[in-house]
Amino acid sequence: MARIAVLGSGIMATALSFPASENGNEVDLIGTFLDREIIDSIQRTGVHPVLGLTVNEGVSAYQLEEAEEVIARADVVMCGVNSFGVEWAGKQLASMMRPGQKLLVVTKGMRADEDGTLHILPEVLRSYFDPDLAEQISWNAIVGPSIAGEVAVHHDTCVVFCGRDKEDVDDLADLFRTDYYHVWTSTDFVGHETGAATKNMYAFAAGFAQGLLRKAGKEDDQYVMYNYGAAVFAQGQKELRSLITMMGGKPETGDGLGGVGDMFVTSMGGRNVKAGAFVGEGIPFSEVQDRYMKEVTLEGVAAIKVIGGALERQAERGLIGPEDYPLCRFLYSVVEKDAPLEMPWDTFFQGLS
Amino acid sequence: MARIAVLGSGIMATALSFPASENGNEVDLIGTFLDREIIDSIQRTGVHPVLGLTVNEGVSAYQLEEAEEVIARADVVMCGVNSFGVEWAGKQLASMMRPGQKLLVVTKGMRADEDGTLHILPEVLRSYFDPDLAEQISWNAIVGPSIAGEVAVHHDTCVVFCGRDKEDVDDLADLFRTDYYHVWTSTDFVGHETGAATKNMYAFAAGFAQGLLRKAGKEDDQYVMYNYGAAVFAQGQKELRSLITMMGGKPETGDGLGGVGDMFVTSMGGRNVKAGAFVGEGIPFSEVQDRYMKEVTLEGVAAIKVIGGALERQAERGLIGPEDYPLCRFLYSVVEKDAPLEMPWDTFFQGLS
Repeated sequence: MARIAVLGSGIMATALSFPASENGNEVDLIGTFLDREIIDSIQRTGVHPVLGLTVNEGVSAYQLEEAEEVIARADVVMCGVNSFGVEWAGKQLASMMRPGQKLLVVTKGMRADEDGTLHILPEVLRSYFDPDLAEQISWNAIVGPSIAGEVAVHHDTCVVFCGRDKEDVDDLADLFRTDYYHVWTSTDFVGHETGAATKNMYAFAAGFAQGLLRKAGKEDDQYVMYNYGAAVFAQGQKELRSLITMMGGKPETGDGLGGVGDMFVTSMGGRNVKAGAFVGEGIPFSEVQDRYMKEVTLEGVAAIKVIGGALERQAERGLIGPEDYPLCRFLYSVVEKDAPLEMPWDTFFQGLS
Repeated sequence: MARIAVLGSGIMATALSFPASENGNEVDLIGTFLDREIIDSIQRTGVHPVLGLTVNEGVSAYQLEEAEEVIARADVVMCGVNSFGVEWAGKQLASMMRPGQKLLVVTKGMRADEDGTLHILPEVLRSYFDPDLAEQISWNAIVGPSIAGEVAVHHDTCVVFCGRDKEDVDDLADLFRTDYYHVWTSTDFVGHETGAATKNMYAFAAGFAQGLLRKAGKEDDQYVMYNYGAAVFAQGQKELRSLITMMGGKPETGDGLGGVGDMFVTSMGGRNVKAGAFVGEGIPFSEVQDRYMKEVTLEGVAAIKVIGGALERQAERGLIGPEDYPLCRFLYSVVEKDAPLEMPWDTFFQGLS
């Protein structure tokens, strides 16, 4: 049994409180400055208003002002903000965490230096910590195909807890593992974190076919566009695997839960797919963002900007070839340059022999 | 321009006549003994009754009696029957094909010897040929994510033509390639054919979640079971890749169009998924087959019986371990032994580290 403090009370952070609390752990959700109403609601009624569910007994909610105290008494601290909040969260956690605590990162994404060098988010968080403290913290993350609400309503879910220390990830996994929340562990930290960030980019592309059909008035036709989606998925998988390898992860991490499995679930729906569908309809991305999905968090688009931008820098430096990652780079031209949706099929599946 | 004879006039065989004829090839569809009404319909009205579309000019339909003459004059012969007809097709083609012709196999599946040795279908077809003739035929196949009707209505589709001779597959690809039918080529014949057969097994498993939801009365709930489906997909991908490797194919063939891409499209729907959904509802498979899907062609179930059965033999012989291919072997127990749907999650994702 452990005391788990969660910074961020979005749907994924809160969903994880279900298996955690059912295993007898105490879970303290801490709202960010954006989560005031969520915390209010949980404190008053027990209901998470976005998730639409009542949290379990053993789960408490706190406003940000109480973060320091709540984090200080925790055995495990989770970073449950979205990728846009990672720098903020890094500062908070760096000032509040204590030696010996375990950190478990749920946030997915990457950051790039100006020269195109990419970093996984736990590294970004760590950059805010005093080096001595950082050494005394255990760094871990959760990845894998996991729609938050499905976890919360106890539907079978298979995930990977990853980190550099096998014993630590195994201990963390034991805290969360239930008969519906199936947890594997891995020390391929960078590979799994890269896969988790990358898959969101391709989910955006997974929406294109739906938009193309809508534009053509063929959404309800007998024959839709699964072939198109499958080809995009296959190219996405190849690029995801390459990115994992390039980052120093194990290539086979691209096959499993943290790669193709996660990309599959993300392609089934959600905000990134919806944004991609608008592009499929022929709407320039800048208009999608300004008009149809204003102020909507789009993790996939954010990942395309970071990773696609970094790959441009890497290509300029000759670190990758001009023909590498053609789908990611096309997606970058769509979101950054309003490129029209002319899928560069001929550039895909290079090296097939 | 070539003269292409197609043995079998099912929906996939007929769909391929669209890109082929639009490239100026003449396409002769030959019905099997099961296709009399289809051929009748095309001859009278031009409409393929199952596909629901009018075939192009340049496409002719013939009853089986005319097969010998039609095949004799062809440059390319396609085997377009389903996997249940492969032995019959082997006998027909062996007696009708001539030296110098190219064969292009659309049929997907595998066959196993009694000792569990697996064979791709082009090998099975070849076993009916006189060895001298077989040497003078070019053996090739089409694989990749390709729902027939989508090809026929000109929706973007990406496929792989594979065979042992690079020049031959490139020539064949040129006959079919259009602005919507995108063709890559590969000499990993055994790898691609294994992937194409294997993906159908996992499509059956892709239906389970839908059935489980239906049984629970939760089909229209806010939270469905994508996590479940994604975990099954990820394990399927791992096994597909292992099977490709075991058969002597290239592991990376499991990543692309002929592996994960094809598995993705097959998991989106169709008869195998539907059969799996009945099992998800809790109906023993023997009852699904005898009552709900009587006389329906289930390529996935057929593949499970062949491949799953072969893996049992191989395990008995010590060629694979007892923990290998747990999903395939579980599916085998479902279709052959009416095992209930208790997904053996704990046996999945072995070797993650």
